[in-house]
Amino acid sequence: MNGAESLLRSLTASGVTVCFGNPGTSEMHFVSALDSVSEMRCILGLHENVITGAADGYARMSGKPACTLLHLGPGLSNGLANLHNARRASSPIVNIVGDHALSHTGIDAPLASDIIGIARPVSHWVYTSTSARNVGADAARAVQAANAAPGNIATLILPADTAWSDADDVANPLPFVSPVDVAQCTIERVAAQLRYALSPAILLRGDVLRDEGLIHAGQIAKHTGARLLCDTFAPRLQRGAGRVAVERLPYFAEQVLESLQGVDLLVLVGAKPPVSFFAYPDKPGWLTPEGCTLSVLSHPHENGRSALSSLVEALGAAKDLPAATKLSVPEFSRTGALDARSVIQAVARHMPENAILVDESVSSGFPHYGITASAVPHDYLNLTGGAIGSMMAVSIGAAVVCPDRKVITLVGDGSAMYTLQSLWTQAREKLDVTTVILANRGYKVLHNELIRVGAAQEGIKAHSMIELTNPHIDWVSLARGMGVEAVRVELHAGFEDAFLSAMRHQGPRLIEAVIG
Amino acid sequence: MNGAESLLRSLTASGVTVCFGNPGTSEMHFVSALDSVSEMRCILGLHENVITGAADGYARMSGKPACTLLHLGPGLSNGLANLHNARRASSPIVNIVGDHALSHTGIDAPLASDIIGIARPVSHWVYTSTSARNVGADAARAVQAANAAPGNIATLILPADTAWSDADDVANPLPFVSPVDVAQCTIERVAAQLRYALSPAILLRGDVLRDEGLIHAGQIAKHTGARLLCDTFAPRLQRGAGRVAVERLPYFAEQVLESLQGVDLLVLVGAKPPVSFFAYPDKPGWLTPEGCTLSVLSHPHENGRSALSSLVEALGAAKDLPAATKLSVPEFSRTGALDARSVIQAVARHMPENAILVDESVSSGFPHYGITASAVPHDYLNLTGGAIGSMMAVSIGAAVVCPDRKVITLVGDGSAMYTLQSLWTQAREKLDVTTVILANRGYKVLHNELIRVGAAQEGIKAHSMIELTNPHIDWVSLARGMGVEAVRVELHAGFEDAFLSAMRHQGPRLIEAVIG
Repeated sequence: MNGAESLLRSLTASGVTVCFGNPGTSEMHFVSALDSVSEMRCILGLHENVITGAADGYARMSGKPACTLLHLGPGLSNGLANLHNARRASSPIVNIVGDHALSHTGIDAPLASDIIGIARPVSHWVYTSTSARNVGADAARAVQAANAAPGNIATLILPADTAWSDADDVANPLPFVSPVDVAQCTIERVAAQLRYALSPAILLRGDVLRDEGLIHAGQIAKHTGARLLCDTFAPRLQRGAGRVAVERLPYFAEQVLESLQGVDLLVLVGAKPPVSFFAYPDKPGWLTPEGCTLSVLSHPHENGRSALSSLVEALGAAKDLPAATKLSVPEFSRTGALDARSVIQAVARHMPENAILVDESVSSGFPHYGITASAVPHDYLNLTGGAIGSMMAVSIGAAVVCPDRKVITLVGDGSAMYTLQSLWTQAREKLDVTTVILANRGYKVLHNELIRVGAAQEGIKAHSMIELTNPHIDWVSLARGMGVEAVRVELHAGFEDAFLSAMRHQGPRLIEAVIG
Repeated sequence: MNGAESLLRSLTASGVTVCFGNPGTSEMHFVSALDSVSEMRCILGLHENVITGAADGYARMSGKPACTLLHLGPGLSNGLANLHNARRASSPIVNIVGDHALSHTGIDAPLASDIIGIARPVSHWVYTSTSARNVGADAARAVQAANAAPGNIATLILPADTAWSDADDVANPLPFVSPVDVAQCTIERVAAQLRYALSPAILLRGDVLRDEGLIHAGQIAKHTGARLLCDTFAPRLQRGAGRVAVERLPYFAEQVLESLQGVDLLVLVGAKPPVSFFAYPDKPGWLTPEGCTLSVLSHPHENGRSALSSLVEALGAAKDLPAATKLSVPEFSRTGALDARSVIQAVARHMPENAILVDESVSSGFPHYGITASAVPHDYLNLTGGAIGSMMAVSIGAAVVCPDRKVITLVGDGSAMYTLQSLWTQAREKLDVTTVILANRGYKVLHNELIRVGAAQEGIKAHSMIELTNPHIDWVSLARGMGVEAVRVELHAGFEDAFLSAMRHQGPRLIEAVIG
């Protein structure tokens, strides 16, 4: 057994069974070993941001890490932006980054670079394996590091000779570091605060936004009158009919301040205090209202679910029935020209139960987030770190974890252009992903921002830097070029027909929705 | 005047007059200021690797830096791989990386990241501007740093408030640090070594591979019998009819060793000693033959051209007439199925004088590099750092510098998929770039490598990780999707017709050459 096989077998022994990769010469032993390790599924991406984004989506839907296979510093660099998003989503990921053989590192070959330096800003754990004898154990440690609550990026650098030299064995999995339980005194403190607050709110993030976490939060809300909130960009949220409703904090600072006005207690469950996404001249960054008490129930690395459960007990809310969202789908007219609103109305009307809504619709989607809130039950995944080009790749990982669920990606055209290679992997793996391109033919979010930052009126050159016309991007051609069936629609009826057709069929589809 | 305008005016005052960019919210003041600074041309790219690659190509053809405009850590991350290539090309580039306002940096907003940490591995110079009052001077220093020989990556981080606050003035340009002249004793040493060597060779890199550098090298070769060599991946080389011929070192270690066998003196002019691109089990990394004397005439930061000129004097070679390449275009049969060889034969036959050949044909191109060597005079640009996805973007920069010259990009399909957004910018700017996709439908270089590294025979999973079939990539659709006219050809005649048509017309074209 060589190091590559020891590494692969140690990864699968530790529960890592999917590898999203794009290998190069230095990873050929790893690639070669794939055929002798049947437990490892390997999925090719044609750009590394597809790979790291897919691993993010995989982690969000499975709760466990996939591994990536990246080719030296440049391969890692290409995947860095979606590792940034994954880090902000607390998604566990194990990166395997090939490197030159140790004997080769001193000679500064053209592909040599400071891989540790490149990895550090996005990684919680970085280590260079120095021997095939240890690489299995190093992999087990990487998986352990990735699985530490709330979910970490672990980057293991694999020099080529560590892969090709003789190894001993497969490493045993290491115990996972469980999330820390919250002290009872903290539970009591928060319970007391909730009892006496006039206008309490609870800001939730992490796995408390689904399953029993959500139910307990609903009981607490029912019992205390607290509002339930989540961040604008919660990594994953369960919502829809029958579920406890959680208000999403709006995007802009002044909207958040308005939303939180009068709140005198903000309880944080795995969340950080709300902040403005960007800075603007003379606008605040911290958005906790004046006079509001911030109270941490659980930090991100702590067990928020058990904390909520204990809080239910402490409040005596165990018998409270949380308010459940009632099914309500929007009206939809078959006539008229499409806009972002009508697109999302049709999605809300026709998406199937248990769909996974993957959202990078940015400026088009913000105002219409509520439209899908009372549709059939579904999961909602957000762009977490603001690095566009994330969610088409995240959809890949989600679809790999949940082959029986329909994945629907809502994405702006500017965003979609970043990681359009995602479509090829969706086609190759026959993933059940419907991509809706909200084609407003510009970085419309920046038109708004030019005004918001108080920049002078948009001139010709400024305008040219934020619009995607001249030439128009033809998404139907782009999708077909990557083997994905696609259609362009401009009217209500056309979109409804295309979307219904996509919902009825398995496999990847793309709908270019031209919106005004 | 605000900081953004002071920055822009200081850049143009220092000679930086082209900005390749993809802005975000934090760069809106910069974008807004563009319209008041008419000297700055701004070009939008829809992915940052397009932007940094374009800046690399601009630097290679102009010898001076363009600036990039990148959106925080993720924008920089997306452009990192082509900055790696640019660094290996010694291309001067000034990166302007927007960041949150300084007041916002403490609050760890979703887009916050360690920008300095991300920049460091690819940058020779990194600085965060702390005030609108200084940002102009900071820009002048960045340009000075970028222009230091042989060409550096300078990264200036621009917090949003540094752009939007009041500034004083425009900074004066700083003097450029000229390349150091080589000491006369070094010239004399090398002259003496060349006189007494039995089988000398001179390895050239940098600006000595063109204009008078090449002529002087040719005189020295004529006088001493030395072979003239360049690296496999020389950033830029002038070649073709009438020019002094330079042998390219082959790619694989054993080929280099064979090529250099018997060489007893290797003179380095701006080059480093030859090394193997990758490490392989039981193969050497350093490729200088045993017993060969390595002798540095000039380091990369030194003035290689004046050193060669002095060496001509020292050798008394001023009257030697260098051997000039004779025009010789290959035969081309109109019948038969395309392969890499016939594609490059047709290119050699029909490319116009002064074309710029931009090469990322990787495995398809290596064996056929010689075919274009005696075509009409042209410039040849190589992928320098091994990070694929470079040269379609480099073509943009080359075409911006040289609007009157035909740019021909030879690129493998695997490589082309990395930065295909380059086509959109080529269409928008109406750049005269003909892209030839050598579509072998796989990472063919890796098929070879699997065997070379001694990896076991390729299994089904291993194969699936290095082939681009299932689905086929349809380059004609992809190009059309980005507004570039395209055609697919599979036969000799079809390619010749398509290529001739592209040569006759201005503007971007793409030819998908399906090769066996």
